[in-house]
Amino acid sequence: MGKKEIKVLKEILNVNNKIADELRKELKNKKVLCLNLMSSPGSGKTSLLERTSSYFPKAVSVIEGDIHTTLDAERLQAVGITSFQINTGAFGGDCHLEADWIKSALEEIVLKKNDLLFVENIGNLVCPAEFDVGAHLNGVVLSVTEGEDKPLKYPLAFQKSQFCIISKLDLLPYLDIDLQRMINNVLQINPEMEIIKLSSKTREGMQDWIDFLNSKRL
Amino acid sequence: MGKKEIKVLKEILNVNNKIADELRKELKNKKVLCLNLMSSPGSGKTSLLERTSSYFPKAVSVIEGDIHTTLDAERLQAVGITSFQINTGAFGGDCHLEADWIKSALEEIVLKKNDLLFVENIGNLVCPAEFDVGAHLNGVVLSVTEGEDKPLKYPLAFQKSQFCIISKLDLLPYLDIDLQRMINNVLQINPEMEIIKLSSKTREGMQDWIDFLNSKRL
Repeated sequence: MGKKEIKVLKEILNVNNKIADELRKELKNKKVLCLNLMSSPGSGKTSLLERTSSYFPKAVSVIEGDIHTTLDAERLQAVGITSFQINTGAFGGDCHLEADWIKSALEEIVLKKNDLLFVENIGNLVCPAEFDVGAHLNGVVLSVTEGEDKPLKYPLAFQKSQFCIISKLDLLPYLDIDLQRMINNVLQINPEMEIIKLSSKTREGMQDWIDFLNSKRL
Repeated sequence: MGKKEIKVLKEILNVNNKIADELRKELKNKKVLCLNLMSSPGSGKTSLLERTSSYFPKAVSVIEGDIHTTLDAERLQAVGITSFQINTGAFGGDCHLEADWIKSALEEIVLKKNDLLFVENIGNLVCPAEFDVGAHLNGVVLSVTEGEDKPLKYPLAFQKSQFCIISKLDLLPYLDIDLQRMINNVLQINPEMEIIKLSSKTREGMQDWIDFLNSKRL
C-alpha cells in the first residue's frame, strides 16, 4: 500500500470519527440507545433482533447493512420493526458501514425517547470493527458453530466491543466445542466484555439480553 | 471515497492480477493444482483440509491466511500437512490475501508434481473475492448454519468461484433451513457452480469432494 492511500484513508477515518461522535451525542440527547452489532455472516443477528423486538413493542428500530438485497429489512418489517436498509453494493460493495450512512438513514427514521436503535452491520468479522458508526455500545454476535478460536483470530471486533452475544446455544449438544474455552478466549482479548449466552430459537438466555438492554437504556 | 484513493487501488489491483497470472502459469507448469478457499469465519475450511489430506498422503500443502494467530497452521501441521502461515496482522490487519504474499509463501514450500496446493483465505465472505491470488480454481465453503440467503447477500465470492462446498451437513437435522433453497440461491448467482455437499465430521459426501479434486488435478 502506498503512502498516498494511507493518508487518504486516515482522512476518511478522521471525518468518520467526527460524524460518529456527533451522532452519538445527538442520539443521547434524544434518549435513544444505539447499539452496533458486528459478526460473521449467518451468526443470527437478524433472528436476535426479531426476537428482541417482541420484548420492546414499537420501541425498536434497525438500520440494516448489507452489500446486496433487502432480505433482512423485509424480515424485520414483517415482525413490525421499523427498519432502514443500507445497500453498500450501490457504492462499490463496501465491506462495512460508516457513520455518514447511519446519519443519512436517521433522516428517514422517526425515533422516540427511550427507543432502542440497532445498527446491524455487514456480516464481516474484520472490517466493520475499523469504523465507528456512532453507537453507544458495540457488540459482537458469535455463534457457537463458529468455533472457540474466533476471538483470537479476529481480535479487533472483540476489542472494540462492550458486549458479546454467544448465539445458537441450542446447537451446542451437536457440536464438538468447549463453550468455556470460547468464553475464556473472548475474555483473553477483552477482559471487560459482558458476555450473554442465548438461543433466539428456544429463547434460552433471552431474558439476560433483555435485562442487559434495560440496564443500558437511556 | 476520493478519486485519488480509487486510482491507487486500481494500480494495486493491476499489479496483483499480473502476479496472480504469473503464479497460475508457474504452478501449472509444475503440475500443481492451486485452489483458493473463501468463506465466512468458522465455516469449516481447516477441518475440511485436515480430512482432505488423509486422501492424498504427502501431496497436500496449505497456505494459511489469518489476521492473527498460527492456530490453523498448527492444526494442519499436526496431521502432517505442509503449511505456511501468512498473518496479515503484521501489515495492518488486512482482510484478504493478495498474490504477492502467496508468491512469497511459495518460496518457503517445496511442491512436487501432482501436488494439491490450497490457499485458505481469511474468514471473510466479502473482501477476499476482490483479489485474485493466482489459484486455478476458486471455491466458497458455505456452512448450512449460515442460512439460505448468503449467496444473495454476498454474491461476489459466489460469482468468482467455480465450486461451492456446502459444509456441516451433519447439523442439518437441527436447523430450520431449506437446503434446496440454499442450493437454488447459489445457482441463481452462479449457474455454472459445481456444488458439493459434505460433512467433514461424519465424512458424508467427502468422496464427492475427493472425486472432484481428482478430476481437476494437473
